Amino acid sequence: MARSGRRPGEPGTRERIEAAARTAFAELGYEGATIRVVAARAEVDPALVHHYFGTKERLFLSVMSLPVDMDRVFESILAGPREGIGRRFVGTLLRLWRDPTVLAVMIGLVRSATTEPGAADLLRDMLGRQGIFAFVAAVAPDDAEQRTMLVGTQVIGLAMARHVIGIEPLRSADPEWLAAAIGPTIERYLTGSLGEADGHATESAPLP
Amino acid sequence: MARSGRRPGEPGTRERIEAAARTAFAELGYEGATIRVVAARAEVDPALVHHYFGTKERLFLSVMSLPVDMDRVFESILAGPREGIGRRFVGTLLRLWRDPTVLAVMIGLVRSATTEPGAADLLRDMLGRQGIFAFVAAVAPDDAEQRTMLVGTQVIGLAMARHVIGIEPLRSADPEWLAAAIGPTIERYLTGSLGEADGHATESAPLP
Repeated sequence: MARSGRRPGEPGTRERIEAAARTAFAELGYEGATIRVVAARAEVDPALVHHYFGTKERLFLSVMSLPVDMDRVFESILAGPREGIGRRFVGTLLRLWRDPTVLAVMIGLVRSATTEPGAADLLRDMLGRQGIFAFVAAVAPDDAEQRTMLVGTQVIGLAMARHVIGIEPLRSADPEWLAAAIGPTIERYLTGSLGEADGHATESAPLP
Repeated sequence: MARSGRRPGEPGTRERIEAAARTAFAELGYEGATIRVVAARAEVDPALVHHYFGTKERLFLSVMSLPVDMDRVFESILAGPREGIGRRFVGTLLRLWRDPTVLAVMIGLVRSATTEPGAADLLRDMLGRQGIFAFVAAVAPDDAEQRTMLVGTQVIGLAMARHVIGIEPLRSADPEWLAAAIGPTIERYLTGSLGEADGHATESAPLP
């Protein structure tokens, strides 16, 4: 999803508020990033933040969109061979997270989602809307919902552990190594057989 | 790790404060769970919370310990065959998380770790101290650090997605199915080949 457009005649102010809000949500979470804090960081009057964005929820929704077209990103991953698709997926995510804006959105969403139900809703939607579901469905149309949620657990955990909690040696692990280590997990969640680990009766039950 | 012992002559009060603190940290995160909030929930004077636990950080450390002996839990998983160890690991976690105290500790840690560096330190320590590292090292002594962090990403992501963010259909997914679906990931992180330079070696490794 593209960022909101500028208002003519007011160059910079809206963008400054957006950037301040994004880093505030990422660093402080939804609760901590008050309109007052965002305004102070953007060096504007809180009334101006309200004027541009209305409520804090609207501000959050407005800045928590990625500055990249995820559809195209996923298309380029899908364009390659199925073999190695999980590794390319993880490698692409790790590369995207190097962009400060992308990282701030991702951390802001995950961090806010832990305390703010509205943010959790947004993160849930984004797993769908912003392409992960569509990506999974392109590979495995029949049970994309289950597979998306499995991919989601690994992606959220990787983001949390590497960028939010900052567990070493994960925090500074080589992206290539990580993509090779975690890629096969994503690949199995996308294309492997699930829920039938050793063929016993319970495991061979149909997917929930 | 066992819970802190009772003080003779003051039955119940300390435990009530601990229980209130645990749920407050889980529901509100570290920032939101002030001494005042905890005291109000436990129906005691805030001074009493300070008397028993000192600072909020000490209170947090005191209640964020699991009421189960994780060493023994991990021992019993290790006692079985290597095949299926990942599935038993995930199944055991999901079963443990059904205990309200365990769940509150786990959610409290993850939720607080997103905004509170001290809580993130604790979560990092616990991945080591409370047994995950020791568990991994019992299976793969040579590269237990890397494997622990990979297991950590999947465990944290599963906890976040299922219990904190509450993504459906994950939130209400059958534990047996989940253990079968996610278990092989843990098993590969424990015993599989990781991070080969090119995709082929990884992909031709025996499937988890």
